[in-house]
Amino acid sequence: MMKTSIFLTFLAMSSWAIAQDTFMALPDKAPVPKNNPMTKEKIELGKILFFDPRISESGTISCNSCHNVMAGGDDARATSIGHGGQKGKRSAPTVWNSAFLTVQFWDGRSPDLEDQARGPITNPIEMGMKSHDVALERIRQIPGYKKYFEAAFPKDKSPMNIQNAVNAIAAYERTLITPGSKFDQYMKGNKKAMNAQEIRGMKTVETVGCTACHFGPNFSGPLPPEKEGNYQKFPQNPNPEIVKKYNLSEDLGRYEVTKKEEDKNVYRVPTWRNVALTAPYFHNGSVKTLEEAVRVMGKLQLDVDLTSNQVEDIVAFLNTLTGPFPAQTMPRLPELRGRTLVED
Amino acid sequence: MMKTSIFLTFLAMSSWAIAQDTFMALPDKAPVPKNNPMTKEKIELGKILFFDPRISESGTISCNSCHNVMAGGDDARATSIGHGGQKGKRSAPTVWNSAFLTVQFWDGRSPDLEDQARGPITNPIEMGMKSHDVALERIRQIPGYKKYFEAAFPKDKSPMNIQNAVNAIAAYERTLITPGSKFDQYMKGNKKAMNAQEIRGMKTVETVGCTACHFGPNFSGPLPPEKEGNYQKFPQNPNPEIVKKYNLSEDLGRYEVTKKEEDKNVYRVPTWRNVALTAPYFHNGSVKTLEEAVRVMGKLQLDVDLTSNQVEDIVAFLNTLTGPFPAQTMPRLPELRGRTLVED
Ligand code: HEC
Ligand code: HEC
Ligand code: HEC
Ligand code: HEC
Ligand SMILES: [Ca+2]
Ligand SMILES: [Ca+2]
Ligand SMILES: [Ca+2]
Ligand SMILES: [Mg+2]
Repeated sequence: MMKTSIFLTFLAMSSWAIAQDTFMALPDKAPVPKNNPMTKEKIELGKILFFDPRISESGTISCNSCHNVMAGGDDARATSIGHGGQKGKRSAPTVWNSAFLTVQFWDGRSPDLEDQARGPITNPIEMGMKSHDVALERIRQIPGYKKYFEAAFPKDKSPMNIQNAVNAIAAYERTLITPGSKFDQYMKGNKKAMNAQEIRGMKTVETVGCTACHFGPNFSGPLPPEKEGNYQKFPQNPNPEIVKKYNLSEDLGRYEVTKKEEDKNVYRVPTWRNVALTAPYFHNGSVKTLEEAVRVMGKLQLDVDLTSNQVEDIVAFLNTLTGPFPAQTMPRLPELRGRTLVED
Repeated sequence: MMKTSIFLTFLAMSSWAIAQDTFMALPDKAPVPKNNPMTKEKIELGKILFFDPRISESGTISCNSCHNVMAGGDDARATSIGHGGQKGKRSAPTVWNSAFLTVQFWDGRSPDLEDQARGPITNPIEMGMKSHDVALERIRQIPGYKKYFEAAFPKDKSPMNIQNAVNAIAAYERTLITPGSKFDQYMKGNKKAMNAQEIRGMKTVETVGCTACHFGPNFSGPLPPEKEGNYQKFPQNPNPEIVKKYNLSEDLGRYEVTKKEEDKNVYRVPTWRNVALTAPYFHNGSVKTLEEAVRVMGKLQLDVDLTSNQVEDIVAFLNTLTGPFPAQTMPRLPELRGRTLVED
């Protein structure tokens, strides 16, 4: 992936006009896998599940707790607080535009949103359910859920199962996309949508080489149906001082999945979309501001000391990638009358 | 209060027709105090504050965490989980129709919603902010908040203060009302809105004496602008077995506020509105089902052993008090760009 994109970048550098593989507007619709088509009913069920804290052991944690769709699609924390107040070692990425990632998680250990959604429900430090069967039993005990599953999966004889639940969540997540940012308007021909500084920042990310890794409509590389992750070593250029300051080498990234030497400290390239709303930064949330994250990237990934002006321009550009979020009407959670499922 | 209402009940028992002080439809609008008129802008600001977890120390707990307006307006738990995973000793009541209560909290220690909203923000086991100044400083650092405060309080020179914040939250809470339940339809003349069992239950709560305490449109006694709390001893009739089983005498209720002997184990009468959605029951959330809560009330408050049929009828009636919730469109939380306010 790095090779192709560096090649593209070099091509692009020779003429601004052909930079279209680097800079592209976000599609108006997310890519949809053939085996999980989106329907209104499936999206509605997925939304309800996304917001239902009852599928967590304590009854207090929903997907939205860590991926707040009223905000950046994350929790604005370095590391999340999950079941029993426990903290994980990684920072919650945004769910906004996660539909445009070829692999999920910082280390790419999950191939798609359907598979990803299985994780948090039973993760002992996230939602903390003992098993998917226990989670499903909770859902089954809430009479109101039945009709939503039936409407979403009309062909299934017994539609209340985990596969359908995660399919529905993924379908809902594919609606959480933010085309229409200043940058998208600019790419679609409205040259007034970005100001001079923002355009300067856009040129800078290309000339200094950021777009070797962060390219395409989501600035995270190719989109699905591509299946391969856009993996890159981080840090590329060891700088003991910065690495120590932000504790950037302890987590071994993709190596923790594959146990291959070459995957040590390798991460999937994250999106730049709405990155201005997702501080703090990096897999461990150790860097508090976007300015500093940009500076660190310059140093660790490209071995350049970006000037203050360059950093300001790049941040101005990154801010043009904040998109309008589709308005969310809260689902009314299916009712359970006269009793609760949660033990104290 | 008890005296008047028992008197009303006796009157009512002599003829179903004059039970109108006992049974009344919920008004379409909540009572509004003169010094905090509701405006569209104030409600919008209040809604944003209600949903903003950034006014909690950890950045993860909002009013909606414990008073989920997608569900019963509570957290379906015996006791809530607040800052640092700590549990309090009392159960979160619903915010739905709290606007119809003359005093707030199980022990009535707060006179109104404006005053009430000050509590949780700095409560060390709820949102855990060190002080209101610290909370306000958070809000001030989020640039997007300024315009909402200015729009909500156009006459104020510096509108970003705690009084305005709690006034806005209270204004939003006054929109969280649920007229239009089956019961309300019935009271407004649609005699088909309730079935035979539900009507039987309605008569039963009056004849056995529940409505001596639970009367009026909110089934919690008089509505504001009345300022007096509708306080009642609980349990009225000591029953060591039940009291021990559900640990009902440890919390001293209103006594913990007034330190007056006569206030030991005295509580404000809670609403019956949406009570089918707010299990578990009582101030400590010790009773898991509505059936059992009704049975316990019969025994402890009226010294009667309700028959199974009576309990079923009463529960059927209480279910007619579940109202349609006004649809909630999620606010987009005011943006903070490129940084976070929350320490890990
Ligand atoms: C307690 C916090 C917490 C909860 C609850 C939670 N997540 Fe996450 N989520 C995280 C963290 C942390 C990561 C990153 C973990 C990693 O990469 O190793 C993550 C990763 C993700 C990703 C991958 C995004 C990317 O850029 O790779 C998606 C999608 C996602 N979560 C969706 C969900 C859904 C759906 C639910 C509910 C079923 C959920 N999350 C519940 C914290 C949480
Ligand atoms: C060689 C690949 C590569 C290059 C070049 C690169 N990045 Fe990155 N970028 C990554 C990877 C991988 C991560 C994830 C690192 C981590 O947190 O583990 C990342 C993370 C980021 C983040 C933080 C995202 C988040 O949500 O926390 C920002 C911001 C960013 N890059 C901006 C830039 C900028 C600006 C440049 C150029 C100055 C740049 N990147 C150059 C690969 C690269
Ligand atoms: C961590 C849980 C938690 C959070 C967060 C929380 N509350 Fe509460 N709330 C409770 C509990 C528990 C009570 C009952 C306490 C008592 O009566 O002693 C309560 C009582 C109330 C009441 C009184 C209702 C009644 O019937 O008397 C209102 C209104 C209310 N809260 C609104 C709010 C608002 C507004 C916020 C945010 C500013 C908030 N709550 C945050 C748990 C919480
Ligand atoms: C003498 C006054 C009184 C009488 C009579 C009375 N109640 Fe109550 N009721 C209360 C008080 C006070 C509470 C709050 C007790 C507590 O949790 O501390 C309460 C609580 C409840 C609750 C639980 C509400 C919640 O949200 O947890 C239900 C249900 C209820 N009553 C139903 C009934 C029924 C049905 C009857 C008649 C069989 C009845 N009550 C008779 C005063 C009364
Ligand atoms: Ca982040
Ligand atoms: Ca009052
Ligand atoms: Ca309750
Ligand atoms: Mg894939």
